[in-house]
Amino acid sequence: MQWYFVALLLTFLTSSQGILTTLSQSNGKYLYDYATVPFLAEVFKLVLSSLLVWRECQISPSTRMTTEWKSVRLYVVPSIIYLIHNNVQFATLTYVDTSTYQIMGNLKIVTTGILFRLFLRRRLSNLQWMAIILLAVGTTTSQVKGCGEASCDSLFAAPIQGYMLGAVSACLSALAGVYTEFLMKKNNDSLYWQNVQLYTFGSIFNLARLVLDDYRGGYENGSWWQRLFNGYSITTWMVVLNLGSTGLLVSWLMKYADNIVKVYATSMAMLLTMVWSVYLFSFKPTLQLFLGIIICMMSLHMYFAPPNMLLDLPTQVRAAPESLKEVTVERRTDS
Amino acid sequence: MQWYFVALLLTFLTSSQGILTTLSQSNGKYLYDYATVPFLAEVFKLVLSSLLVWRECQISPSTRMTTEWKSVRLYVVPSIIYLIHNNVQFATLTYVDTSTYQIMGNLKIVTTGILFRLFLRRRLSNLQWMAIILLAVGTTTSQVKGCGEASCDSLFAAPIQGYMLGAVSACLSALAGVYTEFLMKKNNDSLYWQNVQLYTFGSIFNLARLVLDDYRGGYENGSWWQRLFNGYSITTWMVVLNLGSTGLLVSWLMKYADNIVKVYATSMAMLLTMVWSVYLFSFKPTLQLFLGIIICMMSLHMYFAPPNMLLDLPTQVRAAPESLKEVTVERRTDS
Repeated sequence: MQWYFVALLLTFLTSSQGILTTLSQSNGKYLYDYATVPFLAEVFKLVLSSLLVWRECQISPSTRMTTEWKSVRLYVVPSIIYLIHNNVQFATLTYVDTSTYQIMGNLKIVTTGILFRLFLRRRLSNLQWMAIILLAVGTTTSQVKGCGEASCDSLFAAPIQGYMLGAVSACLSALAGVYTEFLMKKNNDSLYWQNVQLYTFGSIFNLARLVLDDYRGGYENGSWWQRLFNGYSITTWMVVLNLGSTGLLVSWLMKYADNIVKVYATSMAMLLTMVWSVYLFSFKPTLQLFLGIIICMMSLHMYFAPPNMLLDLPTQVRAAPESLKEVTVERRTDS
Repeated sequence: MQWYFVALLLTFLTSSQGILTTLSQSNGKYLYDYATVPFLAEVFKLVLSSLLVWRECQISPSTRMTTEWKSVRLYVVPSIIYLIHNNVQFATLTYVDTSTYQIMGNLKIVTTGILFRLFLRRRLSNLQWMAIILLAVGTTTSQVKGCGEASCDSLFAAPIQGYMLGAVSACLSALAGVYTEFLMKKNNDSLYWQNVQLYTFGSIFNLARLVLDDYRGGYENGSWWQRLFNGYSITTWMVVLNLGSTGLLVSWLMKYADNIVKVYATSMAMLLTMVWSVYLFSFKPTLQLFLGIIICMMSLHMYFAPPNMLLDLPTQVRAAPESLKEVTVERRTDS
């Protein structure tokens, strides 16, 4: 399977996530407990990965699986980072409004690039750095509040703590991604076995959250298992399946591609969701959405296109030194 | 003199043009006839260029000056294109509002690139094309009307004629620039002599406009020479001098650099004017201005930075064998 096919599928599924979630509401309200969705998605991923690892072991008994605790325990780290991230996110939202938070979220693209360079020691050309910055600028552009919108951004008016927490949030989010890539690539273990470890911890942490929410809420809505499938419609199940599938695709990309590919897929998905909303929910298309799409497309091309497609490089790069005549001829046909 | 120094000066002077024009008003109104400003600027350029060509002839009697009518008559073309452009602009504004017209004006950046390629047969790499599109996107982004602004764009609501005329306007504007570059570069004539021809026609056309305005207005405000310096303040004279100087710098760039350099200088100037306005006229800085500046800076770097600064090229490109080096040098002077 080619990475760009997986990335395309991830873009498509992620973009439908927002649409499905909106469709699963009734009159703008959830009839079900939304906190149960990520838990069920984790369980779905865990069950599917377990089945796949079991089948893989049956087909080839030489399937690589590191089962030492020293290795297994590392798979708890992404869950811990997400836990901290959720709390930082909560704290940030006490200082800034949601639209400012959304705008700041684009910083994650740049922090991913930085941590990708620092921790995974992957080199990026200047042009690729520029592409990453442009991707963040492009997604931000598409989110600029338009003329005549009901509530205006108070983007430059939040207390400094808000911006600092927003930056911390962007770093944590990037760190989770980069750490997962490190985990998936650190050995040749079966992808499914790595997934089983990742999603076991993911399920436990999500379960703990449901239990804790019940405890904090004084069991007003009963225990979590009593309301687990309450109000679930077909659409809600599609949200669960969608969230689970995108998670599996991200895992695949972390092992066989990288974080930057994932960042491009999810950014493009965000724009695609906005385009879909124009048709499905008759959102007014804005100039800034159109501009954002152009910027992100340029960024995509800048990052992934081979150098000789971007620049008219001297043919010597490709040709051998001894064939000078050929080089000249090539130049002519080139131009 | 280096072209980037001239481009920087042009950026600075063009950006102050808008500020000076605003400062020359009293309570938002012109106390003088604004139509006299471009005329006086043309005369200023003509007088200065005449003096310079006279001095040049005295210093070196071998100064190149083609004086055949067959050549001189070509210098009327830019004036004719500007005349048509002004009328198209007037017609466009009967279909679209000024802010939509301003947004459409950014199309000029792209049409300049296209005519530059088609008429002057200058090659641009894919990356340079992307840079040009990003420059247009960046300037447009900075002009997106913000949340809470008084009047909203009716950007997608104008009749089709408005957009078509806007496109024609962008083409004419680009054509004038590209044709001027062709004129300035077609032979080794003295720049000052070329300027004299250009500005003689410019002065005549501007004069004709003043006379025609008087005739159309039924001489209600008297004849143009009666109100030529009426209401002129020091600031008005600075506007005239500024407009004249930027014209001379553009001429220089057309001969020794090119249209794309000019387009970058004027686009950057537009952004700089907006930044100045934040300080001078306490305009509220917007997120879209900030994003626009980043996009244009990236575009600038993409267009002008040498390839090996943008990409990690194989070392062979830089450390080529001697025989190959010659080829590389030849190619560079070629392009």
